[in-house]
Amino acid sequence: MHSQSPSAGIVTPQIAHFEAPLTLKSGAVLDTYELVYETYGTLNADKTNAILVCHALSGNHHVAGFHSEQDKRPGWWDNMIGPGKPVDTDRFFVIGLNNLGGCHGSTGPSSPDPKTGKPYGKAFPIVTVEDWVETQARLADRLGIESFAAIMGGSLGGMQVLSWTILHPQRVKHGLVIASAPKLTAQNIAFNDVARQAILTDPDFHAGDFYAHDAVPKRGLRLARMLGHITYLSDDVMGEKFGRILKNDVFQFGYGVEFEVESYLRYQGDKFAASFDANTYLLMTKALDYFDPTHHHRVSLSEAMKPAQADFLVLSFTSDWRFAPGRSREIVKALLDNNLNVSYAEITAAHGHDAFLMPDPHYHSLVRAYMCNVVRSLGL
Amino acid sequence: MHSQSPSAGIVTPQIAHFEAPLTLKSGAVLDTYELVYETYGTLNADKTNAILVCHALSGNHHVAGFHSEQDKRPGWWDNMIGPGKPVDTDRFFVIGLNNLGGCHGSTGPSSPDPKTGKPYGKAFPIVTVEDWVETQARLADRLGIESFAAIMGGSLGGMQVLSWTILHPQRVKHGLVIASAPKLTAQNIAFNDVARQAILTDPDFHAGDFYAHDAVPKRGLRLARMLGHITYLSDDVMGEKFGRILKNDVFQFGYGVEFEVESYLRYQGDKFAASFDANTYLLMTKALDYFDPTHHHRVSLSEAMKPAQADFLVLSFTSDWRFAPGRSREIVKALLDNNLNVSYAEITAAHGHDAFLMPDPHYHSLVRAYMCNVVRSLGL
Repeated sequence: MHSQSPSAGIVTPQIAHFEAPLTLKSGAVLDTYELVYETYGTLNADKTNAILVCHALSGNHHVAGFHSEQDKRPGWWDNMIGPGKPVDTDRFFVIGLNNLGGCHGSTGPSSPDPKTGKPYGKAFPIVTVEDWVETQARLADRLGIESFAAIMGGSLGGMQVLSWTILHPQRVKHGLVIASAPKLTAQNIAFNDVARQAILTDPDFHAGDFYAHDAVPKRGLRLARMLGHITYLSDDVMGEKFGRILKNDVFQFGYGVEFEVESYLRYQGDKFAASFDANTYLLMTKALDYFDPTHHHRVSLSEAMKPAQADFLVLSFTSDWRFAPGRSREIVKALLDNNLNVSYAEITAAHGHDAFLMPDPHYHSLVRAYMCNVVRSLGL
Repeated sequence: MHSQSPSAGIVTPQIAHFEAPLTLKSGAVLDTYELVYETYGTLNADKTNAILVCHALSGNHHVAGFHSEQDKRPGWWDNMIGPGKPVDTDRFFVIGLNNLGGCHGSTGPSSPDPKTGKPYGKAFPIVTVEDWVETQARLADRLGIESFAAIMGGSLGGMQVLSWTILHPQRVKHGLVIASAPKLTAQNIAFNDVARQAILTDPDFHAGDFYAHDAVPKRGLRLARMLGHITYLSDDVMGEKFGRILKNDVFQFGYGVEFEVESYLRYQGDKFAASFDANTYLLMTKALDYFDPTHHHRVSLSEAMKPAQADFLVLSFTSDWRFAPGRSREIVKALLDNNLNVSYAEITAAHGHDAFLMPDPHYHSLVRAYMCNVVRSLGL
C-alpha cells in the first residue's frame, strides 16, 4: 500500500443529485444535474471545519487519497491535503468536487441529456465561475455546511474562491487564492482561443456532437494540451528539464521527434486526448475567459471585492508567466483597499504556473502556517 | 502613387537559375533550383556596396518598394530600406531573396519536381540555415559580389547572418543581427512543434502531398499562425491593443468571437492560411530548431564564432519574449570573446518580437548611425 507518505487513504466518490432547476448566467436552465464529490477527514458536530477545494482547468473531485488498494496515483493535490499535511485532514473536513460541465462524473456535455437520453454535446450550456459557485453552495447546503472554514484553489480554482467571497461573503471564513488572477489578459484569452480553435476545427468534433458520430476530436484536444503545457511551465524549467537534448544521437531531418521536449509534449497531448472530454475543455476555457468581477471596468476590482469579509492567503510564484505575480498583487491591493486581513507571498519557484501543484517546502510551510491560523481563529 | 514616404520605387523580381547540384546538410541533393530575388539601389563599380537581407520565418524577397503603380503594400522592411532610409539605397545595393524552400518564387515544396513534373510535396528535403547561406553565396557569385558590405536580418534572419560570418568570414564586412538568438530554447522548439503538429495532423495535409489532392491544410496553418502571432507580440502590447474589449456589447455565451483579440488572431490565421505554403512553414520552423553553431555543446558559442571577422551590430528589444535580450547578450559575449568590434543595444520597445519590423525612431537611428559607419569604414 501507500505507506511512504500519509495519505487520506481509500476514498469513494459520492454523487449528489439536484432536482431544483438551475438558471445559469447565460440564461440557460438545467432542470436537474449531478455533482460528484469526495470528502476527507471528519465534519465536526458544529460543521465549522469544512474546507472546499475548487479545481482548475482539467482538475476534478479526486483531490487526495486513493480509489483502491491497487491505485498507484493519488488525487491531484495529495501532497497538500491529508493527515498531517499542510491542509490537515485530522483537523479539517475537506471536500473536492468535479465542477458542473466536467467530465469526471458531474453532469457535463458527455452526460445524457434527460430530454433525449443521448449525450448533451453542443446542447450543454456554457457555465461560468459564478454558476459553479452557485452549484457548490447548493452542495454545501446538502451537506449542512453553513459556512466554510476555508475555500481554496489554484489558477481557475482561485477565481472560484474570489467569486465565493463576493457572492456568499458570510459563508467563507478564509479564502486561499493561489497562482490566480482577477481576470484574464488578452494574451491569456488568445492562448485559450488557439486551443479552442484547434478543437472546434477538428473534423472529428462534429459541432460538439462527436459522441453521436462515434468520434473523438483527438487531434484538437492534443494540440490544446500541448499548447497548455508550454504555458504551465516556465521557460527556465523547460530549459533545465529538456534543453536541446536530442531523442537520437544525430538529427533525422524529418518531422518525427528530434528533441526530447517534442516527445514529452506529444506524449502529454496524446494522454490527455485519450481521456478528457473536448466539450468540457472548451467550456472550462470559456469560464476562464468570462470571469471578470469588474464587469468590463464598470467597477474597479476594489469595488468588486467590497462584499468580501473573509481573511485571505494569496500566493504567487516568481516563474509563473501565465498568471504572473503582478496579477496576484492586483488581488492583494483590492483586498487591502477593503481593509481585509490579507497574507501574501511571492514564492521563488522554477516550475512556472505548475508550481502550485508541486511540493515546494516554502510554499507548503506557508499554507501549513496559514491553516494553523485558521484553526486558531475558528477555535477548532 | 506612394509619395508620402520615399521608397525604393517599382521593383521587379528576378530569377536566378542554378544547375550545379547542391548537397544539403541532410545529405539530400537538389540537382537544380531557382532563387527569386530583388535589388534596390545600384551596385558600384568595385562591387563593394552590396547588402544582403535575410528573411525570417514567413518573409520573402520583397523587402522594399512596390511591384506596380497600383500596389498598395510595400515590401516587408520598406520602413528600413530605401532612398534616405536607415539602410540608404542611394548608397547601398540591397538584395532581398526568397530562401530555398520558400513559397514566393524560389524552389520549394510547392515547385514542380523535375523528376515528376508535379509539386515536390513531401519529397522536398529539409533545408538548414547553413544550406541557405550556401545558396545565398552562390547568388552572390552569380552577381559578382565577392564580399558584402553588410548582411542583415531579424529573428531567423539574424541566424543566417551569424552563420555567414562563420562559414564565409571573408565575405562579410558587417553583420547586423537583430532580435535573434544563437539557438532555440526548449520553449521555442515546443511552440514550433505545436505549430507543426497542427499542420501535420490536419487531414488535408495528406502527408505533405496535399497539392495532388487539391487540398490545403488551412486548419493547421491557421492554428500555427495564430499561435505564432501570440509569441510575436508582447503581453503588454496585446493588453494595450485589445485588452478585454468585447466584439459585442454583451457576452454571447457561445464559441463565436467574444473578444477583439480572438477576432484579430482568427483573421491573421485565415489570411496566412490562404496564402502561405504549409510545407514551407514546416521547413522554416525546422531550420530554426536545427540552427546551433555549437553543435550540441561540442564547442562553446565563443569557439563557434571564432572564424568570424566581421564587425557587428546586435540589437534586441526589451519586450521580446520569443528571443529575449538575454539571447542577444549571449551572442555579444561570444563576439567579444573573439575580440570582435561589436555594437549592442537593448531597445525599449513595447511590441515584442515584432518590434524589429516597426519604425521605432530609436531603433532606426541606431541602424542609420551604424550604416554611416559602414559607409565610412569601407570608403563608400
